[in-house]
Amino acid sequence: MAKIIFMPQGKEADADGHMSILQLAQKVGLPLQSTCGGKKKCGKCKVVVEETDASLPPPSDQEREHLGELLEKGYRLACDTVLTAGAQIQIPVESLVRRQVILTSHTKYAYPARLQPNVEQYYLEVPAPTIDDVKADRERFLSALHETFGLRHLHMDTAVLRELPRLLRSGEQGLVALIRDGREIIGLQGELEQRLYGIAFDMGTTTVVGYLMDLLSGDDLSVVSAMNPQIPYGDDVISRISFCQQEPGGLEKLRSHMVHCLNGLILEASTQAGINPNQIVEMTVVGNTAMHHLFLGLETRYLAIAPYTPVVTGAQDKKALALGIEIGPSAYVHLLPLKAGFVGSDAIACILATGIHRKKATTLLIDLGTNGEIVLGNKERLVCCSTAAGPAFEGGHIRWGMRAAAGAIERVKIDPTTFDVILKTIDDERPLGICGSGIISAVAEMIRAEIVLEKGHFNENIQSSRLRRGKQGWEFVLAWAPEAGAEQDIVVTQKDVAELQMAKSAIYAGATLLMEIFGGKPIQRVLLAGAGGNYVDPLDACTIDLFPGCTIAKVIGVGNAAGHGSCLALLGKTKRREAERIAQKAQYIELAATERFKELFVSSMFFTAARDYEDNF
Amino acid sequence: MAKIIFMPQGKEADADGHMSILQLAQKVGLPLQSTCGGKKKCGKCKVVVEETDASLPPPSDQEREHLGELLEKGYRLACDTVLTAGAQIQIPVESLVRRQVILTSHTKYAYPARLQPNVEQYYLEVPAPTIDDVKADRERFLSALHETFGLRHLHMDTAVLRELPRLLRSGEQGLVALIRDGREIIGLQGELEQRLYGIAFDMGTTTVVGYLMDLLSGDDLSVVSAMNPQIPYGDDVISRISFCQQEPGGLEKLRSHMVHCLNGLILEASTQAGINPNQIVEMTVVGNTAMHHLFLGLETRYLAIAPYTPVVTGAQDKKALALGIEIGPSAYVHLLPLKAGFVGSDAIACILATGIHRKKATTLLIDLGTNGEIVLGNKERLVCCSTAAGPAFEGGHIRWGMRAAAGAIERVKIDPTTFDVILKTIDDERPLGICGSGIISAVAEMIRAEIVLEKGHFNENIQSSRLRRGKQGWEFVLAWAPEAGAEQDIVVTQKDVAELQMAKSAIYAGATLLMEIFGGKPIQRVLLAGAGGNYVDPLDACTIDLFPGCTIAKVIGVGNAAGHGSCLALLGKTKRREAERIAQKAQYIELAATERFKELFVSSMFFTAARDYEDNF
Repeated sequence: MAKIIFMPQGKEADADGHMSILQLAQKVGLPLQSTCGGKKKCGKCKVVVEETDASLPPPSDQEREHLGELLEKGYRLACDTVLTAGAQIQIPVESLVRRQVILTSHTKYAYPARLQPNVEQYYLEVPAPTIDDVKADRERFLSALHETFGLRHLHMDTAVLRELPRLLRSGEQGLVALIRDGREIIGLQGELEQRLYGIAFDMGTTTVVGYLMDLLSGDDLSVVSAMNPQIPYGDDVISRISFCQQEPGGLEKLRSHMVHCLNGLILEASTQAGINPNQIVEMTVVGNTAMHHLFLGLETRYLAIAPYTPVVTGAQDKKALALGIEIGPSAYVHLLPLKAGFVGSDAIACILATGIHRKKATTLLIDLGTNGEIVLGNKERLVCCSTAAGPAFEGGHIRWGMRAAAGAIERVKIDPTTFDVILKTIDDERPLGICGSGIISAVAEMIRAEIVLEKGHFNENIQSSRLRRGKQGWEFVLAWAPEAGAEQDIVVTQKDVAELQMAKSAIYAGATLLMEIFGGKPIQRVLLAGAGGNYVDPLDACTIDLFPGCTIAKVIGVGNAAGHGSCLALLGKTKRREAERIAQKAQYIELAATERFKELFVSSMFFTAARDYEDNF
Repeated sequence: MAKIIFMPQGKEADADGHMSILQLAQKVGLPLQSTCGGKKKCGKCKVVVEETDASLPPPSDQEREHLGELLEKGYRLACDTVLTAGAQIQIPVESLVRRQVILTSHTKYAYPARLQPNVEQYYLEVPAPTIDDVKADRERFLSALHETFGLRHLHMDTAVLRELPRLLRSGEQGLVALIRDGREIIGLQGELEQRLYGIAFDMGTTTVVGYLMDLLSGDDLSVVSAMNPQIPYGDDVISRISFCQQEPGGLEKLRSHMVHCLNGLILEASTQAGINPNQIVEMTVVGNTAMHHLFLGLETRYLAIAPYTPVVTGAQDKKALALGIEIGPSAYVHLLPLKAGFVGSDAIACILATGIHRKKATTLLIDLGTNGEIVLGNKERLVCCSTAAGPAFEGGHIRWGMRAAAGAIERVKIDPTTFDVILKTIDDERPLGICGSGIISAVAEMIRAEIVLEKGHFNENIQSSRLRRGKQGWEFVLAWAPEAGAEQDIVVTQKDVAELQMAKSAIYAGATLLMEIFGGKPIQRVLLAGAGGNYVDPLDACTIDLFPGCTIAKVIGVGNAAGHGSCLALLGKTKRREAERIAQKAQYIELAATERFKELFVSSMFFTAARDYEDNF
């Protein structure tokens, strides 16, 4: 079989005549950008085929469309090219998935003063058996728990039974039972410990964040994060769901990638804190409905077709072992409740963390992402919806869009007279592309500099070498090829602006619809949650008319509120019940079933929609 | 590394200079007889070392003792010989573990007329979700179960959740939930089935028997059996327990061998019945306490030292998946309750099956084995004990003893005047050795022919070429070397008779003690259970004075009563509660703590003990 060598990494794969270059690269651990999941639609997986032993098939229509003149330089789409002979493949830096800047902080919140972990320590002494009273270990132990604490009907799994004889005989001084929810003994120790370890996860479509905590003090012991390992199978949940349908064993593949990722993070967090992962007695998980289902290995097919039915929405308690999660052998994983196919436990956790369901003031909570979850409410009532904003807020479907990784343009300043551009990139590296907050910032600046007009068109009257006609219509140059160190100039195209209009219009229309359902009460606060949410400048959000009634003063970035909600559920069992009440209480609006949403969506496209709307309200 | 070739099988192993020939043979799937578990005590693992490339170490004391003149013919003990160079090893036919005749029948019992399986089918229709009422699959399904049958708080594991979306959408006509004990949905089907499959196991020290049954009709669908795969690690439970203590990972090794064996039997039974193992919805298991603990991977160390404490005695319900058992993915394994370290769930199952706890008549139940379990009782009261009878009843510690496999002498007739011998062997093959019922039969005949006298001594006055002085004292020839096709004559030695006296004395003393505790009430029936029990001739049992007050008329062989008890628990949930009541009710007598037992043991050695005892009672 012919060898394929990926450069500059030098990794090798065998060309089997069946797998695409994209699949081969995934196989050897080089995940390429692929917003569409290998469907030849996004054009992100550009590679250069060099030194091949055989002639390549002619470019497909999709390759012609996405690559244009790059074809002459040997560029191909990795997803659309199958090699039958050896070759050297150059991976341009912009095609490689880079480690995203992951938003883990949620320092704006304090933990509740009263911790109520659902796992508690019980110290007790158990009499030794005698020849005249030979009661079995388990039965003596349970009797002692009953006599000492009045506890009855306690379960105990085989892993605990396996430890029991040794611990009963290990010391003079009795032992400690770890009891979960007063119902099951999930661990045994020789003595009372000063710390009890738990881990809370926020399992996002793009990133996974874990918080290792001490359940007794509420201390954060370590925070770890990783890119979602399912990204190579599709950037968004819909691509991953269709991967599961098309590839035999696809669901199991995505499930096991996620489990492997979580186990890696658990090990990393434990190592940082100087503990063994099997000392972790409880884990909580939040995520959107698709992530939740993929983690449990549940069918996701019906999430993608009307009426978008989840398999399960209630909170789940599963043995970690049965899920393949490597923590304490008898520990449980608690999955917070979901609301609907596109309002997951991450949204419930955001509400839990921000407490909007307990406040008199009416709050609009927006989680900016491919699916923008929107919640509006107060202590009386909650309404929520999810809008298919598309991937623009995460850099997807944008000509030069990329994830929020090093080299991504995240802030743009444009001089309104000279049209000179000042860029801020992540880690101050040479610009490689534009991330979600970057495209919002760029378009907001272009609006303020009147390069982009009210309806989203480019102002053709502007005299600047940066504004020009490209192959796909008008475009504005943010960075010239030499500064970017790229083959081409980094631009914002007319189509990019249109993509952002679609995205923001979806949010705007969803929020407006919720307000109408809510009875038009004035919104006192707007919370922007999620990675996108925290990095977006409130001024930029208002400039692009992201939501109705926008005034900068009341917009607050709240960071990773979902992760914080997961931590709260880890630390307090009453918080779990609160999450269930939130899921019960929240009224879900299915936008797909709402004619009014379509009207609002169309009327919210312009960048003056906010003002128009307020005039009419 | 040098090659070892085992003949006549032709299997090969590498001589690593560390493993004994016994271990190497186990490794390549040639289990050798080893009553002592490789401790150089039983002398059963004889092999002939041929064509070796190196000189062997001189024979050990144990080899000299067990092999005697056979040493000159190249015989060695496989457990005591480590090879450092290549060799060819001849395995004599008597050294190989042969498939035992396994007692599976329990046809003397009828199943209860009213079946009450703990898994039931519920047919229901679940409304499809609509865009206006998007309830998740699980929540709609649970609502329908509540509305249709009033069932609430039902559990459902991930395996069932994974099936739910497909089955909810597979037909127009609703679906069937399999519900266990009214508490958990353990399976889903498209329609009501005519059969519901369960499997009951009796997990003996020597043999494992499985009964595949239809829970709806009570029909036996197939019966399967295998040798206990733990035999190569020790013939009796004490040897296996010490193996676990001495070998790192030993417990896990024995556990996984048993699980593998059970899965093989499950597959075999399913294939015979034309079903898939994952159609099996419930499994029950009985076994002695050590087998039970080894199957669950529980510590067995404390079973072997006073006060012989089990880890657990209560009935257990465990997910099959968590135990590695390959039946329905959400099915449970029910383990019947144990009584004590040496009165296991097999004894409880024997009581359940024979119903002695429900009868007015006082019954003595004896399970003949290495540990002889004895129960005495009626519907008022039950007392039980276990006596360390030693392995004689299973052919162990007997010079020519062997398992009840083809070629084993199982019945002996001796002409009281000519002393001619007529042998009955299993499968009518040439005699290879003497099994448990064979040694009882031989000694009983020798008593009747007055070759063996009251105190167990050989009658030296008898004139017969068959009675002679051997190297270890007097011996009686059952088969001459030419008829046996062996190198040596098959004999019963004075020491063999003494071993049987020890064994029968343990049973006699245990039964007598129970009778004394019971207040000396007359015994109306004696039931002989277990493989040994069924094959032993009641007349032989009485001739050797196996238990007090012996009259042939009231002795009944009841076959594999433990297996039948396991089946009853599979078919009826009330039988499970009954088993728990039996375990509660039975009073366990620890013989090790009883001075009276020691007195009785000494006074029960003679073959007239019965008459003596009755005279004094």
